[in-house]
Amino acid sequence: MTPDRLAPSNRAAGVQLPIIPIVAGWIAETPGTISLGQGVVHYGPPKAALAAIPEFLAAVPHHQYIPDAGLPELRSAFEGKLRAENGIEAPFERGIYVTAGANQAFLNAVLAICDPGDEVILLSPYYFNHEMAITLASAVPVSVPVDERLQPDLPAIAAAITERTRAIVTVSPNNPTGAVYPRETLAAIHKLCAERGIYHVSDEAYEYFTYGGARHFSPGSLGGEHVISLFSLSKAYGMASWRVGFLVAPEHLHRELVKIQDTVVISGPAISQFVGLRAMSEGHGYCAAHLPSLAKVRGEVLARIAAVPDLLEIPPVTGAFYLFAKVHAGMSAIDLSERLVREHRVAVIPGETFGVTQGCWLRIAYGSLREKTVVEGIDRLVTGLRAILAA
Amino acid sequence: MTPDRLAPSNRAAGVQLPIIPIVAGWIAETPGTISLGQGVVHYGPPKAALAAIPEFLAAVPHHQYIPDAGLPELRSAFEGKLRAENGIEAPFERGIYVTAGANQAFLNAVLAICDPGDEVILLSPYYFNHEMAITLASAVPVSVPVDERLQPDLPAIAAAITERTRAIVTVSPNNPTGAVYPRETLAAIHKLCAERGIYHVSDEAYEYFTYGGARHFSPGSLGGEHVISLFSLSKAYGMASWRVGFLVAPEHLHRELVKIQDTVVISGPAISQFVGLRAMSEGHGYCAAHLPSLAKVRGEVLARIAAVPDLLEIPPVTGAFYLFAKVHAGMSAIDLSERLVREHRVAVIPGETFGVTQGCWLRIAYGSLREKTVVEGIDRLVTGLRAILAA
Repeated sequence: MTPDRLAPSNRAAGVQLPIIPIVAGWIAETPGTISLGQGVVHYGPPKAALAAIPEFLAAVPHHQYIPDAGLPELRSAFEGKLRAENGIEAPFERGIYVTAGANQAFLNAVLAICDPGDEVILLSPYYFNHEMAITLASAVPVSVPVDERLQPDLPAIAAAITERTRAIVTVSPNNPTGAVYPRETLAAIHKLCAERGIYHVSDEAYEYFTYGGARHFSPGSLGGEHVISLFSLSKAYGMASWRVGFLVAPEHLHRELVKIQDTVVISGPAISQFVGLRAMSEGHGYCAAHLPSLAKVRGEVLARIAAVPDLLEIPPVTGAFYLFAKVHAGMSAIDLSERLVREHRVAVIPGETFGVTQGCWLRIAYGSLREKTVVEGIDRLVTGLRAILAA
Repeated sequence: MTPDRLAPSNRAAGVQLPIIPIVAGWIAETPGTISLGQGVVHYGPPKAALAAIPEFLAAVPHHQYIPDAGLPELRSAFEGKLRAENGIEAPFERGIYVTAGANQAFLNAVLAICDPGDEVILLSPYYFNHEMAITLASAVPVSVPVDERLQPDLPAIAAAITERTRAIVTVSPNNPTGAVYPRETLAAIHKLCAERGIYHVSDEAYEYFTYGGARHFSPGSLGGEHVISLFSLSKAYGMASWRVGFLVAPEHLHRELVKIQDTVVISGPAISQFVGLRAMSEGHGYCAAHLPSLAKVRGEVLARIAAVPDLLEIPPVTGAFYLFAKVHAGMSAIDLSERLVREHRVAVIPGETFGVTQGCWLRIAYGSLREKTVVEGIDRLVTGLRAILAA
């Protein structure tokens, strides 16, 4: 029924189907499923931030357009946060943009620096939306596997750089692995990018989520005109549905980033930025207060998985709220994931989604549920794996 | 300081600078300026919709991700609205997407149907963000001027179609001209697109804003697998800063549109969709109640401009809250617009922004201000033009 000329674009056809809605479909068909799938936290935004909303609603101009790059007060507050917490110096007027989430920030960055056919290096397992954005921009994602400790493989990254490479993307703390990259590693990638004249795109959405003394490091603190940093209020402040992200970029991209923002969304939603500003005024402590409970859940999950090394193993990692588990199975992780939902009512995300084609890997997210539910989910996972792998 | 490889992409460099922030800059430097620039209405969202917000805030899941395509209740309500008001049949599950504003809806559509080098026909004067989105997607905007009545020139449009053409875009009621295209004209374009196997993209953000018996027509009501329709709550419900738009597309694009939405923003902001659903329950009457005051302002503007035919002329139009005026001047509209702000404290948008390179044209927006202010703004415009053109 679709005449050829009405076929979808190749760029869109070439993008992988987003896994989260697919898994959500399996879950919807399997009542009672415990989801260790989606990357969300179990808490909402600070109450004081929400309590200020009537002030936003009262003035008609608040309902009209706001500056493309976002509310100046929020950008200014983020400039202060970057200086105090991340060691990044960025003048908000020409270097900080509020986007409708960090995904949109990444897309804006890709459009600002990549033409069709340009290459962007992702470390696999990669965050699937990064690979999707690069493909959608008709650029080329080049995947370089991490090493067995889930850490960047510097020589392999350097070897992957070509004349068409425009950027190397790092995500630390990592989605989907939970790995936190040490300062030296990120500094080495920052230096490699500087030497080769390409961008270092650093996604720091999980910056506050570290455990056991691991410390987050921002490559933007090393300076240079080649670092693009991405941040989000979704995780730290429980604001995923509000869509507030930040793009921090060198001033020489300012003109282009304003054009792109105007074209894509004009601005991010104003009420979300109003609430986000007030959420940020509670500071990093708001998130930190939730970390002990996350750490406890994490410990329970790790202990249970450590008890079944014949079924699956997890390389040690220290951040985010993900674990990336290698299952000792010959089947595809997608098939395994679907069976885990349909037969054992527990949802995880299959490794293929993150570009992992060697071995059967699963991402386990433990941020969105309370301890008891997570533990029950892990018990179902173990029981399910034992049943499926024995067959 | 910018090494070559760190230069912005050609696609971004090729996009025009967004005019609204530039004019906003002139205004910021010229206190007391009356802006007839930005396309916003002077009212906010329905009070009852805002009053429901505490219900949204109370539940943690509301702060987590919502479905990529938007809240099902809102999409379902929009399905009903399309059927009742527009004569469009679209199953919400596979044909209606809530975006972060109609700009994002347009970008999603372009990415879904265009590869680099593909062409999209715009009628000039065009809505600048359409031209920007096509360019940013590395596709090619092909501009076909409207006729002297500011109506589509069918033979010229047909002649512009090539092997690379993927779509014709119409905006009715039009931004920037205010023209409402008659049913027969839109039906002819719809038929032309069907015959040539290309998409008809119909932007209907101003559907409720018509005057003097003019009637809005939705080409999607004619059926076919080739119509993509765009809508917005920004104007009708005074929700510009909330970022709620709709993309209505044939089901054969469903897979691609979900991927694109997931990549660009994951979803539009949830609180905005919650409020938008409740705003829509007030119906089209909410907007209609504001039309008499807009019509009165419009009448005042037209009367004042009709009194100075030596300075400028406006082809008769019947919609939106824009007028597109031809100034009898040899200078560029950009230079004229800047002088009007800096010397006469009145802001309008220059024609070049909309792709008009022949003659000196200005867009006058009359939706955002109360009658007295608009009239004073027009008086400044007339006085300013008289002074500048006499020099």
